[in-house]
Parts: sequence; C-alpha cells; structure tokens
Amino acid sequence: MTLRALRAEIAAVNDLLCASSVLVWDSRTMMPKGGAAARGHQIAALIEAARARLMGPATARALEGALREVESLPEDDAAVREVGAVRDALAFHARIPADLLRAKAELRAAANGAWIEARALSRFDLFEPYLTRTVALAREYAAAIGGGGHPYDALIGLYEPGETVASLETLFAALREGIRPLLERAAARPAPRLDVLRRSFPAERQRDFAAAIAARFGYDFDRGRLDFTVHPFEISFTRADVRLTLRRAETFDPPAIFGGFHEAGHGLYEQNVDEAYTRTALATDLVGFYAVGGTSFGAHESQSRLWENHVGRSPAFWARHFADLQAAFPDALGDIDADAFHAAITHVRPGAIRTDADELTYDLHIMLRVELEARLIAGEIEARDIPEAWNAAMRRDLGVAVASDAMGCLQDIHWSSGMIGSFCTYTIGNVMAAQLFVSAMGDPGVRDGLEAGDYAPLHHWLRERVWRHGRRFSRDELLVRATGRALDPAPYLAHLAARYGA
Amino acid sequence: MTLRALRAEIAAVNDLLCASSVLVWDSRTMMPKGGAAARGHQIAALIEAARARLMGPATARALEGALREVESLPEDDAAVREVGAVRDALAFHARIPADLLRAKAELRAAANGAWIEARALSRFDLFEPYLTRTVALAREYAAAIGGGGHPYDALIGLYEPGETVASLETLFAALREGIRPLLERAAARPAPRLDVLRRSFPAERQRDFAAAIAARFGYDFDRGRLDFTVHPFEISFTRADVRLTLRRAETFDPPAIFGGFHEAGHGLYEQNVDEAYTRTALATDLVGFYAVGGTSFGAHESQSRLWENHVGRSPAFWARHFADLQAAFPDALGDIDADAFHAAITHVRPGAIRTDADELTYDLHIMLRVELEARLIAGEIEARDIPEAWNAAMRRDLGVAVASDAMGCLQDIHWSSGMIGSFCTYTIGNVMAAQLFVSAMGDPGVRDGLEAGDYAPLHHWLRERVWRHGRRFSRDELLVRATGRALDPAPYLAHLAARYGA
Repeated sequence: MTLRALRAEIAAVNDLLCASSVLVWDSRTMMPKGGAAARGHQIAALIEAARARLMGPATARALEGALREVESLPEDDAAVREVGAVRDALAFHARIPADLLRAKAELRAAANGAWIEARALSRFDLFEPYLTRTVALAREYAAAIGGGGHPYDALIGLYEPGETVASLETLFAALREGIRPLLERAAARPAPRLDVLRRSFPAERQRDFAAAIAARFGYDFDRGRLDFTVHPFEISFTRADVRLTLRRAETFDPPAIFGGFHEAGHGLYEQNVDEAYTRTALATDLVGFYAVGGTSFGAHESQSRLWENHVGRSPAFWARHFADLQAAFPDALGDIDADAFHAAITHVRPGAIRTDADELTYDLHIMLRVELEARLIAGEIEARDIPEAWNAAMRRDLGVAVASDAMGCLQDIHWSSGMIGSFCTYTIGNVMAAQLFVSAMGDPGVRDGLEAGDYAPLHHWLRERVWRHGRRFSRDELLVRATGRALDPAPYLAHLAARYGA
Repeated sequence: MTLRALRAEIAAVNDLLCASSVLVWDSRTMMPKGGAAARGHQIAALIEAARARLMGPATARALEGALREVESLPEDDAAVREVGAVRDALAFHARIPADLLRAKAELRAAANGAWIEARALSRFDLFEPYLTRTVALAREYAAAIGGGGHPYDALIGLYEPGETVASLETLFAALREGIRPLLERAAARPAPRLDVLRRSFPAERQRDFAAAIAARFGYDFDRGRLDFTVHPFEISFTRADVRLTLRRAETFDPPAIFGGFHEAGHGLYEQNVDEAYTRTALATDLVGFYAVGGTSFGAHESQSRLWENHVGRSPAFWARHFADLQAAFPDALGDIDADAFHAAITHVRPGAIRTDADELTYDLHIMLRVELEARLIAGEIEARDIPEAWNAAMRRDLGVAVASDAMGCLQDIHWSSGMIGSFCTYTIGNVMAAQLFVSAMGDPGVRDGLEAGDYAPLHHWLRERVWRHGRRFSRDELLVRATGRALDPAPYLAHLAARYGA
C-alpha cells in the first residue's frame, strides 16, 4: 500500500497549495488593502508547509515503495507518471537551497511594490535595483537547477518542460518569417470603423455576456465563478472550484470580453481533468508549486487561446452571437452589423502594450521579452540596459516608438514576480491552439457544431484528447496523440494567413 | 534569542490558522457549491500543518530557552503571558490523541451535512446518530483534557477558561431570578406596532446603513469588509483584515441590522489588538486553533453585545440616527417616529428561536442549552432524549410550545460542528458587556459622546481597557482592571430592569 501512502502525502501537499491559491484569489478580488502584508506571510507559510510535507520523511519512504510497486507497469501508465512526477520533484527541490527560495520570496514581495510605484511614475530607476537582484537570483536559481546548455534553459523548463533557447530560436524564426508579410499587408489596408468599441458597454453587462458564453462553452458555474479584477486570471483549487476573473471596462475593451473567453478556456481545462486525478501528482505542479492540472503553461495557454481566438474571434462565432451582443448593448450596437463588428475586433494595429495586442502582433511582443530574458540570464546585458534594449527592439520588431517606460519595459508584472522564463509559453500556446483546432475541425461533428453555435462537440473533443489527461502526458505527447505531430508552427501560420492575409 | 525563535514558530502557526480562516470565510461567502468537499480537505490540512508546527521540535526547543529568558520578568508582563500561552498549549495538545482529533474532524464534515438535511425536513431521527457520536467524542475529549470536577468543565474551558458548571449555576440562578419578574411585567404590557418591521427594507440599503454605522463606531473598512451570508459572523486574519457578514433580509429583520452592529463589535475588538501582538501567542488561540486576538469567547461576545444592545438598541442612539434610517428607507418609515420605532425593536416576545430572541429572553435560550449539554456530557441523558428534554425546558423557561424539531433542538449549528461547551459564552458576553458599559458611562466624555452620536470616546475607552490587550489578560483580569470587579451580573440585571422593567 505504498502508492496509497504516497497519495496521502501528495494530497496534503495539494491541499496546502490549493489553500495558497485561495489566498491569492482573495488577495486580488476581495481583500481590503490593509491585508496585504499579513497575506504575504500567510502565502509564504503555506508554500513552506507544502515543501516541508513534500520533502518530509513520509514522502521519501512512500516513494521508494511506490516506485517498486509500479515498476512492472507500462511507461505511460498513469500510476507510473504519477510516481515519476513525485520522484522528479523531490530530485528538483533537493537541488534548490532553502536560502535561495527564501530570498526569492522576500524579494518578490518588495519588488512587486516597487514595480507598481515605478510603473505609476514611469520611473525605471525605481525598479532597476529590484530587477538587478531578481536577475541575480534567477541566475543562481538556473545554476542550482542545472541541466547544461544555455543557462536560461533551466528557467524555461520550469514553465515549459523540454523547450530551450535553441528550440525557441527555430520556432521564433519560422513565426517571424510568416508574420512579417502578413503584417505588411495588414498595414496597407484601410482601418475599419473603430469608434463603436469606444461607446458605452456597462461592465456588469459585459460580465453577464461573458458568463453566458462561458456557460455555452461548457464552463460549469456550480464549480466556478466570475469576478472582476484589474488583471484577469484563472485559478483553481481542485477541479471542483475553478474561478475566472474579468477586466472591468465600460467600453468594448477587447481584453475584457475576449479576456473572459480566454479565462474560460483555462477554466475548461482545469474543470475537466480526470476526477480520479484530484489531489494527486497528476493534478499538481510539484516543481513550480501550483495546484494546477494542466500539463504545461503552454498547453494551458493553448486552451485559452483556442476558445478566445479560434472560436471567439471567428466570423462564424459572431455571425451566430452578434445578435445576442446587440440585445445586451442595444444603445452601442444598434447601427452596427456583424461584419463591421468583426472587422473592428480583428483590426491589426501594432502598439506598445502586450495585453492590448491583436492576434497578429502578439507574438512579436513575446519574442522580444524572451530574447531580453535570455540575454539577461546569460549576462550579455544587465538590468540597467533594459529600457534602451526594449525600446530598440520595439522599433525594430513592431515599428513602435515607446512613449515611456510605463508603456514599455515596466508594463508587465512578470519580472516583479520573479517569473523569468514564462513568456515563451504564450507563443507556444498560440501555436498549439492552432494545431489542435485544425485537427478538431477535421471532425465533422465539431465543424458543424461550431457553425450552429453548439460547442459541445469541440468541448468533448478537447476533453478527451487534452483536458482529462491532466499532467499524465507531456505537451508533445498530447499533441502527437491528438494531431499526429509534436509542436508545429504551420497550422498557426496558416490560421494567421487565413484571417489576416486577405 | 530564543524568545525570538519561539515567535518565528508561533508566527508560522498563526499564518496557517489565518489561512484556514480565509478558507472558512470564502466557503461561506464566495465558494461555488461544488467546492465543499475539497475545501474540507484543505482546511483539515491547514489545521494539521499548524498542529505539526506547534508540536514540532523547533517550538519545544525555543520554548525551553524562552521560559528561561522571561523568568525574571513580572508575572503579568506581556512576554511572560506570551510564553506561558505557548507552554500551556503544548501541554494541552500533548494530552489529546491525534486519532481523537481526526475522528472529530471527520465527524464534523458528515454531521454538518446531516444536520442541514435533518433541519430542512424537521427530522431529528436523521441527526440523532451524529449527535450520539458527537457526544461520545465530546466525552472522550473532556476526559483527555481532564482537570477534575464536572466532565463538562473541560469543554467549557475551551471557550471560557475558568468557568465551570458550578460557577455557571450561581450566575444563572441570579439571572433567572432577575429576569423572571421583568418578563412577567413585559408580558402584561400591550404590544407596540410591529407591522412597520415587516415592510420592505431592501437588503443592499440595510447593508449600506449597517456599514455606515460600523464606520461611525470606528470599524476600519481599509482593514475589513462587509458581505452577505446566511449566518452572520466576524472572522479575522490578523488585525489587518477583519471581515463582517450580514444576514440578507428584505424586511427590517432585527438580526440583520442589529447583527451588523453586533459583528462590528467583534470586528472592533480584533482590529484594535496591539499591533505588536500580531502573529504572536497574544493574538492566537493556540488551544482552540483560531487566529483570534480576543481573550475568551465571552469577552469577544461582550464587545458585540455592547455595541449591539447598549449602544445600538438605546433610545439615545435612535434619537440621533432614526432620521438617517428614515432617509435610507423613506417608503417604509415615512409615517413612523423614533419612539414608535424604538418600541418595535425592543419589544419582548418569548419565541422558539434563539437568534430571533429579544434581549430579555435571550439568556433563557442559552441557559437551556448549557443545562442540556452538561447533562449530555455527564451521561444523565442521551442524544435520543434531546427533543423531549428541549421541548419541556422551552415550556418551563419561556412558556413556548415548540412546533417542530426544526424550530427546536435542530435550530443551532453548534452541535453539528462539535462545538459543545461554547453556549455559555453568549450569556457571559451579555453580563460582561453591561459591566463594562456601566463603567465606561462613568466617564463623562463617553456619556456626552454617546448623547451626541460621537462614538470615539467609547471606542477609545474600550480600546485602552479591553481590545489592545489581546490575549495578555484573562477575562476577569480585564474586568478587574476596567471595572474593579470580576464578572458580576448586577449591572446586567440593572440594565435589563431599566430598559424592560418600566
């Protein structure tokens, strides 16, 4: 019964990590401002307790027996993967000095406050010492993780196991080559009417509309909820409680409604992980210490981008649902038709801000960040060089002159959170979404369903091939099983060309 | 530096208990219904982690040194009390078998579900097996705690250290004797107009009014919030985040608005514990495992009842604030004056439900429960005898015929939560509130302030004498310091006579 004993330990680890996620959700949606300092202590105590439980003698003892118990099973058996994930996590954490984790956690709290102030005042100098320290700790962390190759590879692997600087360079080169001509063609086209998006769209009605669409996608509100936040996110505390948030906007800010579809995609993944995996290593990131069932950050992003862009930004979607939107916002949309609306929400316009970016320029923002992070970790540049390097790359890649550091290198929260290595997963998500969507559309039931506004066949297709497997299969294993190929940019470029090349 | 090492351990225990409280708050206000089972696991894991930390070798080691470090300090020095609280908690928990705690926790989850169903169907037979088991575990728990005397004493001590069956009998006899003639006189008076309370009072506006009054009392919304729940409560995660909830009612249900004042009183206590005690044993109940700064349940209840009844139900309060209430509810109150309103909200009418009881009959509900619990724990009666014993006592003490078990012995959540021993603290709170209020009114600044609707002097008086001390002083130590006497029913009976004897 040692697998059973191992599961009891991991269940407790998952419970503590879920509790930490509840505290994170609360801190972003409900917590009064005075609670921030105490909340930082509480979350740190939970992570520390989870680590103590994972690295405790009971886990080690149970693991030894569990490894023997599963050794005769096939390599891709769920139990083999489950026990293997614990083994790998123990080996990972054994390499990381506790002092380094504490230093990272302490810095995160301070850096986040400094970043908020620096961004508000657009003063990079206020954030620079924190970024210098963040980079120094990230370099130490990468060295502790080890693994050879480019030092940034170790950090990428935290979020997207298997990807490296080298593999990303190949992928990014293909994407740049495909996107550049599309962008030139888009720039040459006249802009559609955009004023409609600036009309009044009351936030509560946007939320109700996003919730109604999420429910149509199959998101289960008995195991979830949708609230407003400044920065939208999805977070889960087992598959039984998976929450979404929405940006509060009073105009038709595309990141609001489409952000709702996006987070719903993340939520669908978590709500549909096999129930038998609940509170196991197949629904817990034991390396990154997140209670998450998706197999990688990129795989997770693929589900949000699939529902946001392939479903939610398609002409078929708005042919079917524009009337619902008109009914919800009669004052704003009375004189607009579905085609004009669709042209507005798919308009391509290079800009300074990643989260406002259209589908065609989004990856250029990501590649820029990945390139800067790799150079930072390699020591080719330092924190103080970032504003200049950022602005130069924005001019080179997007033709955008950055007006201020607040609109430039201070715009994203990631560096102040110590999340160096994660940006590439946004682009991997885009690529994987297209690859899965093309395969799903090969199923006539899925295709007919989408034409008819019936999302159940696509939901079913993804649940069977992606969601239910939790962390059992790697991203590329999922892709090979579902599409016959590992990650491949061709379907994504074809999608961009079809939507933006005409 | 061993006191410092001890504080680091206790801070982590407090962090984990605060996290548990966040999860409890969320489960009652925000959690989708699907999340309940996983949430039970998460809370259990947090309590287990807190216990492991408290009972771990680091705490024991640091305690030994800390005891030496404080041995030359005066007995009532804060550090002496702080270290003593840890020592007592370790001794307490060492006596409790881990199996018993696990059995209690498992039963609680099951018993709560059974109680909800039993109450909805008014079928005591569905709850009886759970109550039988709850009582059996409570008897075991009492035996493990030990201490001699009546076995119920050990359970009372969890909530109100120092009280016993014997001390409560003396207190209750005095209260019964004082209340009986007041109740007879009240019954002989004609009823005031009560229809006004049944008019429409939209819930959101009741909340806004309660929030405005809480703010006037000095409750700090930068470190708190007010939400709707089925059963109102106050809960805190350090003094920096202290939350209140309100019953949602669409009529002027006295438990709604007055419940708001009541919870604000609890909140004021927690928000004003000395900041230096944050995350220490002086702001953590290390025996009961609640992250709470109030020194006993009775002392806590004294603050809620003081603001609810002595302030909020006084003629002076409504002479000042009835116009605000009229302005918030012009349709319901346009034809009513402050005196008629005050007569309605202080009307005495014995009833079956504790939480709806008026000030004069409330303690009779409490004494009935205490008596039944004492007899259950002593083995004089068993769970199956409860409905009959309950109904007989209601007839005897309140002259009320109980229409159904849902309106009788199934009405309260306490037994399904395993909270046997806590009921007496409601009455102790009433007694202590009156004692403190009379002393406070001896201060002319407090008295003039209340007449003028200025609550700052009373706030200050209570903060200095009660709130800021956290768990440093016992309830009776606080009372002696503030009023010159230990718990004394005379001021409470005088208050009831003044308000209800005329």
